[in-house]
Amino acid sequence: MIKIQSLQNTKIKDLIKVYKNKNSINGFIVEGIKEFDMAIKGNFSPKKIFICKKIFHEYNMIESYHSITFLISLEIFKKLAYRENSGGIIAFFKEKFISNQLKNEKIINDSLILILDGIEKPGNIGAILRIADATGIHFIILCNMKTYIYNSNIIRCSLGSVFTRKIFIEKIESVFLWLKKNKVKIVSTGFYHHKKAKNLYRTKLNYSKLAVVFGSENKGISNFWLKKSKKIITIPMFGSVDSLNVSHAMSVIIYEIVRQRNYST
Amino acid sequence: MIKIQSLQNTKIKDLIKVYKNKNSINGFIVEGIKEFDMAIKGNFSPKKIFICKKIFHEYNMIESYHSITFLISLEIFKKLAYRENSGGIIAFFKEKFISNQLKNEKIINDSLILILDGIEKPGNIGAILRIADATGIHFIILCNMKTYIYNSNIIRCSLGSVFTRKIFIEKIESVFLWLKKNKVKIVSTGFYHHKKAKNLYRTKLNYSKLAVVFGSENKGISNFWLKKSKKIITIPMFGSVDSLNVSHAMSVIIYEIVRQRNYST
Repeated sequence: MIKIQSLQNTKIKDLIKVYKNKNSINGFIVEGIKEFDMAIKGNFSPKKIFICKKIFHEYNMIESYHSITFLISLEIFKKLAYRENSGGIIAFFKEKFISNQLKNEKIINDSLILILDGIEKPGNIGAILRIADATGIHFIILCNMKTYIYNSNIIRCSLGSVFTRKIFIEKIESVFLWLKKNKVKIVSTGFYHHKKAKNLYRTKLNYSKLAVVFGSENKGISNFWLKKSKKIITIPMFGSVDSLNVSHAMSVIIYEIVRQRNYST
Repeated sequence: MIKIQSLQNTKIKDLIKVYKNKNSINGFIVEGIKEFDMAIKGNFSPKKIFICKKIFHEYNMIESYHSITFLISLEIFKKLAYRENSGGIIAFFKEKFISNQLKNEKIINDSLILILDGIEKPGNIGAILRIADATGIHFIILCNMKTYIYNSNIIRCSLGSVFTRKIFIEKIESVFLWLKKNKVKIVSTGFYHHKKAKNLYRTKLNYSKLAVVFGSENKGISNFWLKKSKKIITIPMFGSVDSLNVSHAMSVIIYEIVRQRNYST
């Protein structure tokens, strides 16, 4: 292990550069023990690990990785870390070459597919990934991505499940062709008064192969998906606010699908 | 209207003080047109209104309030505002004397009561209030509040519904006595392996008077509520993450109650 005692050290300066440049194409930063574990679980390789020994004590865990480990002072750690209580570990991971291509993926019966088209806020994407994990969604597909997939907020809000789930970043057209080829039913979601829109709780959604599409925070879902959809569903609203945050809408809709599939009598 | 052209102006300095001190006991700041409208709808009185005329144009709206209006430059507005695109208006509101006392409130049949005990993050409280509005919850009760109810994040994440809903800040004991007196069934929520815990989707929740309790982000629900509960429910989890964020758990549970009440066949 190499000790670093100054913020002027070039390794620290490099790390700060990656922190600031959230779209680094070579790698990304993972902060926190849980998140680090999830990245390892997802077969990502840490290249550099920075630990603060006043906080972090599981050295054995670290030694098994082929990475360089740096010991940093509490002062440096506090300057670097975005969060308190993340556990004294910050690591730089190399990006993994993702060989998965959607068109080669087979869709079996009972597949549940999530399509996020143009969702902008990393916090929303992360929260949605956490719920996608909780509900056991089989494929997560992101279209019109405006943010880096390993953005620190996506990592944090997904509790690191961004590393362990099957995620594809694809063009809308290829997604649609793949769904069509595999005879997947498409359901779109929205809150506006579309003539075809139906109350979630009055809609049967227990298709054997189902893709659910969510649109961007500001513009909602695009006409492309609306036209291709078998059904358009809305969540009933009983108050004066006229919409839910997209991650809350997603949790309500996906759990209703889970209920219809597994618990409806 | 009074023009202000310097950040050194005492009115601006006062405003910055309120921004920094999030626990102001005399009043609070509302930023954004939507949020301002909701505060007015909730019968709060703006004492000072700061508008940036490069962004804000609805002067007529402003003139009807008995408040002092200041015109500020774009430069000052940008220094003050927390958010972009909030519409060029920042107002200081006086706190309203809340005469409502929980013990005087009557609970009619079909009442749905939400109890938040010790939830810490303003963003979570705000998100929950937005969903409480959407689902038409009748009473929102906050216990062990660790944050100011008109915290800027609560205002923003609730889309201003913090001003328009019936919200009570009470001690646990008084809440429990009120529930007991009114024969309200209590349901607790959690994800841990409590021996009494049952899957949400295998639990009947269509009580005519129902209170649902959510605990803090870190500690979950307290033994007090667990002991007083008719039922303890959990949300089924199918992935590797072991919990949902409290606001997502709340949206899933409350919408399931809404479904059972209104749409179950």
